[in-house]
Amino acid sequence: MVDFNYYAPTEVVFGKDSEEQVAGLVKKYGGTKVLIHYGGKSAIKSGLLDKVERLFKEGGVQYVTLGGVVPNPRLSKVHEGIELCRKEKVDFILAVGGGSVIDSSKAIAYGVPYDGEVWDVYMRMYTPETCLPVASVLTIPAAGSEMSESSVITNEDGDVKIGYSNNISRPKFAIMNPERTYTLPPYQTAAGITDIMMHTMERYFSHDDDMNLTDAVAEALLRTMIECAPEVLKDPTNYRYRAQIMWGGSIAHNDLTGCGRVGDWATHQLEHELSGMFDVTHGAGLAAVWPSWARYVYKCNVSRFVRFAVNVMGVENDFTDPEGTAIRGIEAMERFYHSIGMPINIHELIGREVTDAEIKEMVRKCSHDGKDTQGQFKVLAPADQEAIYRLAK
Amino acid sequence: MVDFNYYAPTEVVFGKDSEEQVAGLVKKYGGTKVLIHYGGKSAIKSGLLDKVERLFKEGGVQYVTLGGVVPNPRLSKVHEGIELCRKEKVDFILAVGGGSVIDSSKAIAYGVPYDGEVWDVYMRMYTPETCLPVASVLTIPAAGSEMSESSVITNEDGDVKIGYSNNISRPKFAIMNPERTYTLPPYQTAAGITDIMMHTMERYFSHDDDMNLTDAVAEALLRTMIECAPEVLKDPTNYRYRAQIMWGGSIAHNDLTGCGRVGDWATHQLEHELSGMFDVTHGAGLAAVWPSWARYVYKCNVSRFVRFAVNVMGVENDFTDPEGTAIRGIEAMERFYHSIGMPINIHELIGREVTDAEIKEMVRKCSHDGKDTQGQFKVLAPADQEAIYRLAK
Repeated sequence: MVDFNYYAPTEVVFGKDSEEQVAGLVKKYGGTKVLIHYGGKSAIKSGLLDKVERLFKEGGVQYVTLGGVVPNPRLSKVHEGIELCRKEKVDFILAVGGGSVIDSSKAIAYGVPYDGEVWDVYMRMYTPETCLPVASVLTIPAAGSEMSESSVITNEDGDVKIGYSNNISRPKFAIMNPERTYTLPPYQTAAGITDIMMHTMERYFSHDDDMNLTDAVAEALLRTMIECAPEVLKDPTNYRYRAQIMWGGSIAHNDLTGCGRVGDWATHQLEHELSGMFDVTHGAGLAAVWPSWARYVYKCNVSRFVRFAVNVMGVENDFTDPEGTAIRGIEAMERFYHSIGMPINIHELIGREVTDAEIKEMVRKCSHDGKDTQGQFKVLAPADQEAIYRLAK
Repeated sequence: MVDFNYYAPTEVVFGKDSEEQVAGLVKKYGGTKVLIHYGGKSAIKSGLLDKVERLFKEGGVQYVTLGGVVPNPRLSKVHEGIELCRKEKVDFILAVGGGSVIDSSKAIAYGVPYDGEVWDVYMRMYTPETCLPVASVLTIPAAGSEMSESSVITNEDGDVKIGYSNNISRPKFAIMNPERTYTLPPYQTAAGITDIMMHTMERYFSHDDDMNLTDAVAEALLRTMIECAPEVLKDPTNYRYRAQIMWGGSIAHNDLTGCGRVGDWATHQLEHELSGMFDVTHGAGLAAVWPSWARYVYKCNVSRFVRFAVNVMGVENDFTDPEGTAIRGIEAMERFYHSIGMPINIHELIGREVTDAEIKEMVRKCSHDGKDTQGQFKVLAPADQEAIYRLAK
């Protein structure tokens, strides 16, 4: 068991009409002039943006707005936000949206008090010791950014997508009203569930076999997501199941399911290059990579994959054939992905086979020009990364 | 599903030698003059107190000390602490010990900035809006006070034990080194495990059947504690199992296992009167009450007790006999209590039958002179409270 720090200070306000509390919460955490940061049409169309603005006016909270955050949020928008915050003397950033908007908010929060270029933070050339406070009204359960210390930004200059984690960026509060997720399209819903599960699976596939409490909580979370997924695809307005997915998204990535163990994160790294290159939905990209990752690595700890097959996927344990059980667990996950409309390889993800040149380019980026390995469950050299992309193509 | 707030801001520093970080953590959270609050011999004998003092000296942190906190911590010690903190201009309280020491610390923290009598807080005559910051070096996994907002104090004047909860008292950090629990005697270890499990069971026995994520996490936690208990009684220095119990104690009571539901808490209330009157170990008192509570209430939601029997206690589900399955779950828990040396009734707890007069007195206190009900799973009128005490006697 590895030593761990657990720090999840975000105040979660969960339930129907919870957004009504937004002005009071901003004031509680010291905000006086807020940047309301959001994505596209949905925040406007749903009336949520209007509602937040009305609540701020009624509550006497000053604000400015900046929309236009796209999936795989861009550095140029971050620059725009930093400039606006400085000009308007903003002291609090409220993300109204999903992980992309929250990640963009965190990047702006780092950038405002920093004299240099904010990309330095993501390039590990500068470690911020302070940032503006961030919070969210969450509308997409997926990234878990609403309680996490991480953010991922894409620099259009070279299509480079880089994540950065720092506890100072953990959001002050997260308002979660499951009704606000009713209008999420099926594909986004399914991709979100895939992302949620993968945040737990990246921590679950580990050689630390001595922290059963963390394993059991992770398995509980994964089984519940598998139970909820078909229900919300059948009835998008089912509060009960939307709520569990929303809360599952937060606890899958607030470190609870990683306590006492070393995470893997190779699937995330391999996917980052996919979505950096093809601008696909992150969760769908994860589904396209994971089965190939799993088949490539399972032999280095068959019993962990057997446990996953039995305890998560409900596969019958063939005690005489651990490898067969392990493979049937991977196959069951592929069937689950297909059942919710997710791809299980890159071909299904982008509609064509990825070319050799594209694979080489993704490996170049993923390995930082051949210098870096990825993953912990099996440490993946650049040649392994290439093999997995080929298996997944 | 009920709306919920989840707020667990305590920074957990978990692992071997984690106490080495104590001076840095106090400074990080603004402490300049610390009250080190502790219980009795064990903090001294183990060398932990000396170590913390040495680390404070090396780290340039000023401090005073106050020991002598007893189980079911007393109001008189709280008064002593408040006086000392005011005289010494203490601005941070570090509890070195278990739940009693942390609870006493929280009470002192409320009292220092309040002009009136601190018991007013517990009597709901005054709601504090501020308190000194509290943190702990945990040595006993049980109460969960290291991450919770609650504290329980016994006023010797009338042997009244009252709990009070307020988010402002959530500890800033909790240092958890499982090795520090190796010397806990078997009875205290078992009572702690019972308390940990009961914190989850109080939330699990609920009529909110639509939050399976919370149920599944609760079941994972309960099963893990049942798995770990015999291992630490067999080998008190087994890091792996001590660690899981320690972390289990925190997440059992930081509200994670209650998200989206109404807790019951009748067993805790009934037990408070028991330990108020007989000064028994809280966890053992819970074990003495719970089986009778369960037998008295299970019929108002048999399926919940069936789920508990099957998913937690590993009882075979007899689909033709739900009530029988439910009862077998309660019996299995009784066997578990006995297997770890815990009582399953008051007779076993205090070594004699409780008298009629004592039962009447406990009911009088538990019902606040016949005015209040207890519990939610089944709302217990004073006559129900009496019936459970009689069943448990």
